[in-house]
Amino acid sequence: MARNPERRNLLADAGLRILAAAGARGLTHRAVDAEAGVPTGTASNYFPSRSALLAGLAERIFDRIAPDPAVVADLGRREPSLALFTDYLRDIVARTTREPDLTRALFELRLEAARHPELRAALGDVLRRGYADDVAFHVAAGLPGGAYEIALLHYAVDGLLLDLLTTSIDAGFDPDQVVSTLVSRLVRGADLAP
Amino acid sequence: MARNPERRNLLADAGLRILAAAGARGLTHRAVDAEAGVPTGTASNYFPSRSALLAGLAERIFDRIAPDPAVVADLGRREPSLALFTDYLRDIVARTTREPDLTRALFELRLEAARHPELRAALGDVLRRGYADDVAFHVAAGLPGGAYEIALLHYAVDGLLLDLLTTSIDAGFDPDQVVSTLVSRLVRGADLAP
Repeated sequence: MARNPERRNLLADAGLRILAAAGARGLTHRAVDAEAGVPTGTASNYFPSRSALLAGLAERIFDRIAPDPAVVADLGRREPSLALFTDYLRDIVARTTREPDLTRALFELRLEAARHPELRAALGDVLRRGYADDVAFHVAAGLPGGAYEIALLHYAVDGLLLDLLTTSIDAGFDPDQVVSTLVSRLVRGADLAP
Repeated sequence: MARNPERRNLLADAGLRILAAAGARGLTHRAVDAEAGVPTGTASNYFPSRSALLAGLAERIFDRIAPDPAVVADLGRREPSLALFTDYLRDIVARTTREPDLTRALFELRLEAARHPELRAALGDVLRRGYADDVAFHVAAGLPGGAYEIALLHYAVDGLLLDLLTTSIDAGFDPDQVVSTLVSRLVRGADLAP
């Protein structure tokens, strides 16, 4: 098994450029080799099947949009509150919109996975782990809300990102305000009388 | 200009089958002609450019997932309330998840539009009109909440559909309950103290 992590990342980044330019259908091992400027067969060495390649791209997306350690350290020094939760969400939206190609690529992979069960299994693992990590982090940080609120916010932020990074309904509201409203209403709304 | 609406719909439906099976990259005028079983050149007659074809598919998706007139009539007889608003949203989720290929195709078109400005313009018109119609209907029906709440719910429901119809985070909550919570918290949350 090929184990050079830098080379693996180089190949994954080449795959992500292809995904951005041509969509999932343009993505083949051969196209990745050509884009990365490596000998034919290299990508197959690191990612032995198409679903391994696509799942490898998904993991690389999460690596590349991972939070800045300095930002995490700053946020981690604050007392848990709704305002802090909002700032964590704002950081997610800032990181994902700063890398529109990567965020769109993840949507693309999720759609491609709907057509390919073996990719769905691999990508599903990555997404489920992401959600479980979010919930564990949230609880450990003592932030308001729980697993249910995190799922609700996950859906709402995905839809907001889809609007911001693909074709928009152009509702004309400030995304920053939208994020703040989503956290405030979805988390505090738990206290509303039924 | 070719004006037979049944033939136009036949071609659009063929295009939507291709989109579901192969993604946006598989979609060409020639592939649509073949899938629809019509002479080469027919699709180009109805949809003179690729973006006209893709925008035509988007309009056809909205036609095909349009509400059942009997359901609309039933809902329209009720007094405006949060429960009624929830039932309208549930009907949207029911219609879109009943046609997973069509709903995924709309996500696919939105992503494809991020790569093609002329498609973005055409698809943007369709999406903006949809949002404006939703707001106008909502106000006329006297339902609680306004344009802001409809935008928030639009994002949240898009993200929920993405989760239900592509690769899921598998948070394990009942979608029906999620829809009801989204309406209740996002609309009633407007009354929470700041």
